[in-house]
Amino acid sequence: MATVRLISDAQASAEVREIFDDIRKVRNTDFINNFWRALANNPAELKRTWAELQQVMGPGSIDPLTKEMIYIAVSVANACTYCIHSHTASARAKGMTVDQHAELLSIVAMAGKTNHLVTAMGVPVDDAFDEKP
Amino acid sequence: MATVRLISDAQASAEVREIFDDIRKVRNTDFINNFWRALANNPAELKRTWAELQQVMGPGSIDPLTKEMIYIAVSVANACTYCIHSHTASARAKGMTVDQHAELLSIVAMAGKTNHLVTAMGVPVDDAFDEKP
Amino acid sequence: MATVRLISDAQASAEVREIFDDIRKVRNTDFINNFWRALANNPAELKRTWAELQQVMGPGSIDPLTKEMIYIAVSVANACTYCIHSHTASARAKGMTVDQHAELLSIVAMAGKTNHLVTAMGVPVDDAFDEKP
Amino acid sequence: MATVRLISDAQASAEVREIFDDIRKVRNTDFINNFWRALANNPAELKRTWAELQQVMGPGSIDPLTKEMIYIAVSVANACTYCIHSHTASARAKGMTVDQHAELLSIVAMAGKTNHLVTAMGVPVDDAFDEKP
Amino acid sequence: MATVRLISDAQASAEVREIFDDIRKVRNTDFINNFWRALANNPAELKRTWAELQQVMGPGSIDPLTKEMIYIAVSVANACTYCIHSHTASARAKGMTVDQHAELLSIVAMAGKTNHLVTAMGVPVDDAFDEKP
Amino acid sequence: MATVRLISDAQASAEVREIFDDIRKVRNTDFINNFWRALANNPAELKRTWAELQQVMGPGSIDPLTKEMIYIAVSVANACTYCIHSHTASARAKGMTVDQHAELLSIVAMAGKTNHLVTAMGVPVDDAFDEKP
Repeated sequence: MATVRLISDAQASAEVREIFDDIRKVRNTDFINNFWRALANNPAELKRTWAELQQVMGPGSIDPLTKEMIYIAVSVANACTYCIHSHTASARAKGMTVDQHAELLSIVAMAGKTNHLVTAMGVPVDDAFDEKP
Repeated sequence: MATVRLISDAQASAEVREIFDDIRKVRNTDFINNFWRALANNPAELKRTWAELQQVMGPGSIDPLTKEMIYIAVSVANACTYCIHSHTASARAKGMTVDQHAELLSIVAMAGKTNHLVTAMGVPVDDAFDEKP
Repeated sequence: MATVRLISDAQASAEVREIFDDIRKVRNTDFINNFWRALANNPAELKRTWAELQQVMGPGSIDPLTKEMIYIAVSVANACTYCIHSHTASARAKGMTVDQHAELLSIVAMAGKTNHLVTAMGVPVDDAFDEKP
Repeated sequence: MATVRLISDAQASAEVREIFDDIRKVRNTDFINNFWRALANNPAELKRTWAELQQVMGPGSIDPLTKEMIYIAVSVANACTYCIHSHTASARAKGMTVDQHAELLSIVAMAGKTNHLVTAMGVPVDDAFDEKP
Repeated sequence: MATVRLISDAQASAEVREIFDDIRKVRNTDFINNFWRALANNPAELKRTWAELQQVMGPGSIDPLTKEMIYIAVSVANACTYCIHSHTASARAKGMTVDQHAELLSIVAMAGKTNHLVTAMGVPVDDAFDEKP
Repeated sequence: MATVRLISDAQASAEVREIFDDIRKVRNTDFINNFWRALANNPAELKRTWAELQQVMGPGSIDPLTKEMIYIAVSVANACTYCIHSHTASARAKGMTVDQHAELLSIVAMAGKTNHLVTAMGVPVDDAFDEKP
């Protein structure tokens, strides 16, 4: 089920085709996953999102595997099944071990648990945790 | 505002006092933050959660700072203000730099964005992302 | 997969049948979508929800297409796949263009992104945004 | 409470100052709301988000007031108090009437209700709602 | 902070006043909590919601205290601080004990935890759990 | 679709097998549902979660059927389809009637609705609802 078509290479406009080509080149694979094919219905967003992804997930002060694990964590809390699947695959491709995956899920689960506890009790933020201006 | 009292040291039962003491010893500080004081209304959960936290956030295959950043990521997506504040403080105590904090937030934000895009489009999971039995 | 049966016309009680008939008359179609067939297990809620839907989504100070787009926006943030599909179909039936759908998704995505940023930073509400009593 | 400082004009780097100036010019007001002052801790994200906001919320096929109402709808479902306040103020500035605000909230509330009903029942998407490739 | 005014008795229209009077009579108290004063900006929704509340939370096959605990559970997962506070007060007024409150929070927390685990692993629904048509 | 394998009896390690055996004994059935088979990829979490489940869902001051209904309520708000299906089956096995299921869903739906209303209006918590220290 989907609310938009998945744009095939044959259906892609020149503008979309150019981005598909860039994704293939940067990732060094011919495979374009469904997210990009769906987003291709919205070329301006496709372009913006692909650019942002490279800036945010590219080299920086957090290593690439950690970035993928953070992405998975958010996607679980937002219940985005597709995103969890695609970023779990990315994390594995970047070297996530079976043990790391297991630990990641335990952290996510425990955070989910304490988030519910804290919210249910309405715990006031300690002064020590406030960033002073 | 809170739905339960924050249990002071004077109000703590022997059972709760023992866990407060353990928290102080393990963390090497006299400070007990409000989460534990609120949870002390539920001694069985206090005990279980403190034990689980040490298992999940303790030494393993993911480094301590990364664990805190994953915890923050889940807490943001679940809109748990207290949890975000307490784990941001923990992450800083474990060495999170200003640049890492900025990058963490950009990843969380971008994941939030693409989670919404994917869900809105109902993107079907690619076969390549399925874990085969 | 479902947790309740989808009530067919043959299975419908007189009470349910009456509402199904009204849905058909008001919408000028023989098609009853699965939401109503599932809700028919709960006749009181079926009746209440159908009445509320007509009041809230009927003529008013916001035009019908905008109402559907607002409905989609909430459903995306709540990760309700069925609701997104049914209201995207309704929005199209009310004239939503390809460009409007693309823009809608970009707004939803950007709101999702800034919601995460704001929550992560714990931004205090500006006085200027408070409604004075 | 906040996890980052709110950057005053005096604390702003040249890079941040330039964006603050642009916000002031584009919005024709001296007021910089707290979101931008908090985001200024992350100049790359500040720049990216301000650019994206202008693209997404600027002129297009959906009118400016409708865009703000969609933004509010997402922010409510994501429980982002700050975002709800700031975009409600923007919607009012763009002409949202008391009646429109009341209707908006009724639509958001009803969507929240049916989202929960649908999810609880696991309603399967009707074939009629699927976008054919 | 609020996005609407809290309507005092003096500010209430005749229509709103009538519902305020009914709330007072049904609940046998002079106290009108802020939810109703805020909702009074939207008289049609005030009327509809008050009617629905009495139908849904009134006598039925689930006892009144259990109904309040279910309400709290949903409100925690949706991070609605106000709702958690008001329904925790209602549950206490209906006899919720300290032990029951503690158990309720442990169930909510554990559900939050396993919800995250299940979503992260993408667990397929067992055939045994499907309601056959 | 799944991000981990479902561990069959043949694939189970001795540690996992022991817990599978305990689940079978405690529940008096040979059936191990997919949640446990997926969680078996993470033996430490499998053990911890099975122990916690028995403590939290076991005998206490809230009756077993009510516990399942609370679990369903949280799972709906978190959009966890699998959890809703498995706990709806558990609730039925514990005697949930058709009327109770219908009422449960109406409460969950109404809470979802008022949660959205309250959040959208930013209703301040009444002093009467605050738990005094």
